[in-house]
Amino acid sequence: MTSPKDFTALLKPHPNADGAKILADERQRSNVDVQPLSLHLFGQQYLERQQRILAIVQKHRVFSKANQANVSRPDRYKLGLARGKRMRQLMDEHGWDDDDLLMAEYLIDDIQPYHLHMSLFTSAMREQCDDKQRLEWMPKIASWEVVGAYAQTELGHGSNVRALELTATWNNASKTFDLHSPTLTASKWWNGTLGRTATHSVVIAQLLLPEGPNGQLRSHGPHPFIVRVRNEKTHLPPKSIVVGDIGPKYGYAMMDNAYMLFDHHRVPHSALLCRYASIDPVSGIYTKPNNPSSIYGSLVRGRSVIVMNARLILARAVTVAVRYLAIRRQFRDRDAPDSIGQEMCVLDYPTVQIRVLPLLATAFALHYSGAAMKALYERTRSTNALDGDRAQLAELHSTSAGLKSLATELAANGIETCRRAMGGHGYGGGTGLVQLNADYLSKPTVEGDNWMITQQVARSLIKKVGEVVASPDRRIASSTDACLSSFHKSHGRGEDATSILNDNLAIVKAFEHRMAWMAFRAHRLREVEKRSWNSLLIDFHKLSRAYSQCILVTSFYDALKADEVPPGSTHVVLSHLFRLFAFATLDADAREFQQSGAVAASDLDVLQDQILELMGQVRPHAVRLMDAFAIPDYLLDSALGRYDGKVYEQLFYNAHVLNPLNRTTFNPDYRTDEIVMGSGDGGAILAKL
Amino acid sequence: MTSPKDFTALLKPHPNADGAKILADERQRSNVDVQPLSLHLFGQQYLERQQRILAIVQKHRVFSKANQANVSRPDRYKLGLARGKRMRQLMDEHGWDDDDLLMAEYLIDDIQPYHLHMSLFTSAMREQCDDKQRLEWMPKIASWEVVGAYAQTELGHGSNVRALELTATWNNASKTFDLHSPTLTASKWWNGTLGRTATHSVVIAQLLLPEGPNGQLRSHGPHPFIVRVRNEKTHLPPKSIVVGDIGPKYGYAMMDNAYMLFDHHRVPHSALLCRYASIDPVSGIYTKPNNPSSIYGSLVRGRSVIVMNARLILARAVTVAVRYLAIRRQFRDRDAPDSIGQEMCVLDYPTVQIRVLPLLATAFALHYSGAAMKALYERTRSTNALDGDRAQLAELHSTSAGLKSLATELAANGIETCRRAMGGHGYGGGTGLVQLNADYLSKPTVEGDNWMITQQVARSLIKKVGEVVASPDRRIASSTDACLSSFHKSHGRGEDATSILNDNLAIVKAFEHRMAWMAFRAHRLREVEKRSWNSLLIDFHKLSRAYSQCILVTSFYDALKADEVPPGSTHVVLSHLFRLFAFATLDADAREFQQSGAVAASDLDVLQDQILELMGQVRPHAVRLMDAFAIPDYLLDSALGRYDGKVYEQLFYNAHVLNPLNRTTFNPDYRTDEIVMGSGDGGAILAKL
Repeated sequence: MTSPKDFTALLKPHPNADGAKILADERQRSNVDVQPLSLHLFGQQYLERQQRILAIVQKHRVFSKANQANVSRPDRYKLGLARGKRMRQLMDEHGWDDDDLLMAEYLIDDIQPYHLHMSLFTSAMREQCDDKQRLEWMPKIASWEVVGAYAQTELGHGSNVRALELTATWNNASKTFDLHSPTLTASKWWNGTLGRTATHSVVIAQLLLPEGPNGQLRSHGPHPFIVRVRNEKTHLPPKSIVVGDIGPKYGYAMMDNAYMLFDHHRVPHSALLCRYASIDPVSGIYTKPNNPSSIYGSLVRGRSVIVMNARLILARAVTVAVRYLAIRRQFRDRDAPDSIGQEMCVLDYPTVQIRVLPLLATAFALHYSGAAMKALYERTRSTNALDGDRAQLAELHSTSAGLKSLATELAANGIETCRRAMGGHGYGGGTGLVQLNADYLSKPTVEGDNWMITQQVARSLIKKVGEVVASPDRRIASSTDACLSSFHKSHGRGEDATSILNDNLAIVKAFEHRMAWMAFRAHRLREVEKRSWNSLLIDFHKLSRAYSQCILVTSFYDALKADEVPPGSTHVVLSHLFRLFAFATLDADAREFQQSGAVAASDLDVLQDQILELMGQVRPHAVRLMDAFAIPDYLLDSALGRYDGKVYEQLFYNAHVLNPLNRTTFNPDYRTDEIVMGSGDGGAILAKL
Repeated sequence: MTSPKDFTALLKPHPNADGAKILADERQRSNVDVQPLSLHLFGQQYLERQQRILAIVQKHRVFSKANQANVSRPDRYKLGLARGKRMRQLMDEHGWDDDDLLMAEYLIDDIQPYHLHMSLFTSAMREQCDDKQRLEWMPKIASWEVVGAYAQTELGHGSNVRALELTATWNNASKTFDLHSPTLTASKWWNGTLGRTATHSVVIAQLLLPEGPNGQLRSHGPHPFIVRVRNEKTHLPPKSIVVGDIGPKYGYAMMDNAYMLFDHHRVPHSALLCRYASIDPVSGIYTKPNNPSSIYGSLVRGRSVIVMNARLILARAVTVAVRYLAIRRQFRDRDAPDSIGQEMCVLDYPTVQIRVLPLLATAFALHYSGAAMKALYERTRSTNALDGDRAQLAELHSTSAGLKSLATELAANGIETCRRAMGGHGYGGGTGLVQLNADYLSKPTVEGDNWMITQQVARSLIKKVGEVVASPDRRIASSTDACLSSFHKSHGRGEDATSILNDNLAIVKAFEHRMAWMAFRAHRLREVEKRSWNSLLIDFHKLSRAYSQCILVTSFYDALKADEVPPGSTHVVLSHLFRLFAFATLDADAREFQQSGAVAASDLDVLQDQILELMGQVRPHAVRLMDAFAIPDYLLDSALGRYDGKVYEQLFYNAHVLNPLNRTTFNPDYRTDEIVMGSGDGGAILAKL
């Protein structure tokens, strides 16, 4: 921070608002071991990578975040392209691997226009190409000679892939496919990297083949094609393709999400990615070999990434909130005898704690669940995996949709909760959360809408209950089986209810009991009472939520029991966090726990007091706990969340030194249209519209 | 919408996605009387004004919203200034009154940089000036010869006004005040219109006067001063003032929120606005006449404006969601016998209804509460106001903080709930909610933080309970008194519990009972058990929420009973909405209702089914109900929410014809830094950073 050249250069915050001193004191007051906890959470390799990549990206001006909020959306795309190029150049220069590049993108915190090339396009080509196609394409993809996208979603069709309208009609005479968009709603839509950047795209279209003597067309459903959408030299599309960027959206200003339509655009036989289905180029006969079973658990691995990402997003918001709220002072204690006392630390108000501290606990709960999923996936890849592990994985495979739904909802809502808890400055650019918030709001919708996909969880659990009811003495393969089976044998009473107040295992049992109660209820309504599927969707959503919360609570409990957590005070504080997370979750759905008989009403009645007490126990450690998440200042990009606590200094610097608007003097006289004083620019602003 | 010059010009949406036809059918299916309902909600004068002002502003290019999302933040400020000037020019041209100008600002939906001049600055000057000052300033304010702001909040101090740091020290020798910011945190902060626009500002500073023989300074607390902050000719501040814009924030890009510091800046004796406190210019003696009692009920009037605004904001989001979701199709009915059937209308899924339809009902609940507050205020202004009215107003005066808190929370959260319910397109610019969302997120914080101010409600209710307990037979002045008194006499059992399922009055009683139970509980904890104030803040927040929900339910109930609602089917549908709002609210806090004995557990158990049924009854009327809110397409600025249903046509037009990014061809080759193809602009983008 350079000093301004006026009297403000000498000013400091009020001594009671000296954030640097306050945060130092906060860190002094807690004995949580930050380094071991960091290591426990992330491992040496991750922390080393973060440090190494950070040092490199911070050196390049193109990655400076200082003024990016003042850049127009078209310029943000240009900046994104420039950043994407530089990242790839650095990859060549420093010999980065894929994880290094992902770390750079994470730290720079701008999804780059090349993102889909590196992710979905590459993985689709690797997965869908046959060996010959792979040989042809993968080198070009690795060298970025082609830049690819993945075009599935259409203007009128999202999750229901079978309803896509774009057709690819095989012409056996010309040996080509005719790609055609019959309607406006058949336009591809939302497809990242395709709007302005990509040269190629995987395109999903309904494969139509002439059949029978009259050559009538028959649909074989959606199939993937590789299509060159722009000329290598001019970067312009052919006349038979219309493609462009869909325009500004909530977030992701630097990403060029696309629309794309085809007017009888022809592609060769080799365009069909034919690992799983092919057409004989001579006879025109379609064959679809048996789809090899999908790689066991890859979905679980994918969902664990989403959960682990959600905990990092949430940790960013909580880090900012905890540091700022520890520094901020407001009002004196109403009950304090001396009315001249100092203002209170805002983080000491229960109304602030109740919003922020359970989210701090949630970040840990998400961490342990994501880590458990990942570990489970990795254990089952070894040849001597235990049967129990495999059964757990199979179960998570079908129910992890619920975890995606819950984790992204917790993180998305958590950002906004933290923001509001920060009061006035929470609305300013100094939070560093403006872009994060806008970007992350996509997550509850993409990769399976958070409400829609919970049906998958319900379907799986209803099936399991059916099996338990049909054969109560069947082999128990997973913890959910065990829980449903025990619930069934007890005729829905569950085990003898133990008070949850002083027994962590009883907390886990309570979450299991409520989940089982809801699963049996869903089973009865659907399978016995034969209610319509749609009339039960809300119940299914609640069941999925209960199941997923059960996983979060259980994973947290298991992690504490496994003694992987650093011992001593850190372990004690994490135990408090476990209970805080569980009780806050329980309190929000208290009636479900009461109605299901999972928790005694008398326990529920005192939950609020318990939560208050736990928050008091966690409070002194809040700053250090978030320090352990090791989120660098460069990533936070937050005046309020600076590690060193210089909140007010940075806010003022951003405004007085950085803000470009202050370099212009304006003419406020409404009788003239001049905007910039003395410029005679009346009416010029209209050109921007 | 002009046609593009390529093959897409001929394309139409799939026949099943023909929004225009679908919305026409939707409107056909309902017999809600839109025009009478509109009139009932808004009155003739409001609707006439909206139509008249709309016709004028739509004619001016500067008010076009088509490309504003692509404009950088500094340019948004310039555009705001240009729009503000044009609005004021139109005011002169058409002889608009203040309400006309406010309507223009509402429709254009851009708060203008002059906003604080017209609102807080003008009202503060009117209220705080003595007669002589008013004579001097009001004509200049009316003619915009001066442009004013209101500077109270500081970098380190928001709600706690008494802790402000800026000082104004009276110098009796020079007959001047010395304005001085002793620290960085004393900087004024957030003050709208002041950053780049204003020439003057009301400035709140601690008044320090020399006292006693040694001339020691004594603070008399915060006082208002009128200060010229910029030169009329150059629009530059003097050297003793540093003032500027704080930079980008969540929303309000066109508003120049300020920071401002003083370095021993001198202002004359006349700068102190001296209606309520003054200094004798000769003797230097400070006098503070008795503060005339604040205008009775003005706070209630102000809060009713917030509530009425919240219902319009929410209605915008719900209008967009209902129209789009009525058009959108996704997946076939899982239970449908014929698997080839059409995709289902998304608004027919209960998981979508449960998010949108209770919010539709909430818009009406907010409307009737705001209207009741306004009517109450107006009744009490007449000389022959009834005692009961006065008592109700006095009560609302002290508890309406809770309504501000609840109404702005419902609206802010409601926008995001609607957005997510719209799935993929809900994340796009086509919602028309991007800016609304970002702007409105300020509301839970400004004009009293939503969590902080609920203490006021609790304080008032605890006091009332204390009075009821102390003298159970005292005169009952308001409905809250009646409710607390009856609760007390029944020893907390309340009246004989009637099932809420088929009795609207029983619903109202249930909300009253729960509120009374919580008020007595708060009273006991604070006054009997003497718990600390801060340890009860969460209880207080819940109490305020319960009290405010009670007002919403009661106001809605009263409005239906008063038969002001258009009769027939409209009245029937609104009764369904009343029950939907009440049941959804009840369900979310079900355990409070059970614990307090307000509702039988057996009723709570079937609430979900009741809600499902009510949503089915409301669903056919959703489009017409929102039509009655009469929000013009120009204001909605939403492809998804177009009145005529041309959702897909508009989305495509926005992307393919309007989006400026598509007029540029880019160079994606990472080995060159060139961004725009053929331009040789490598590195130029760095200048934007």
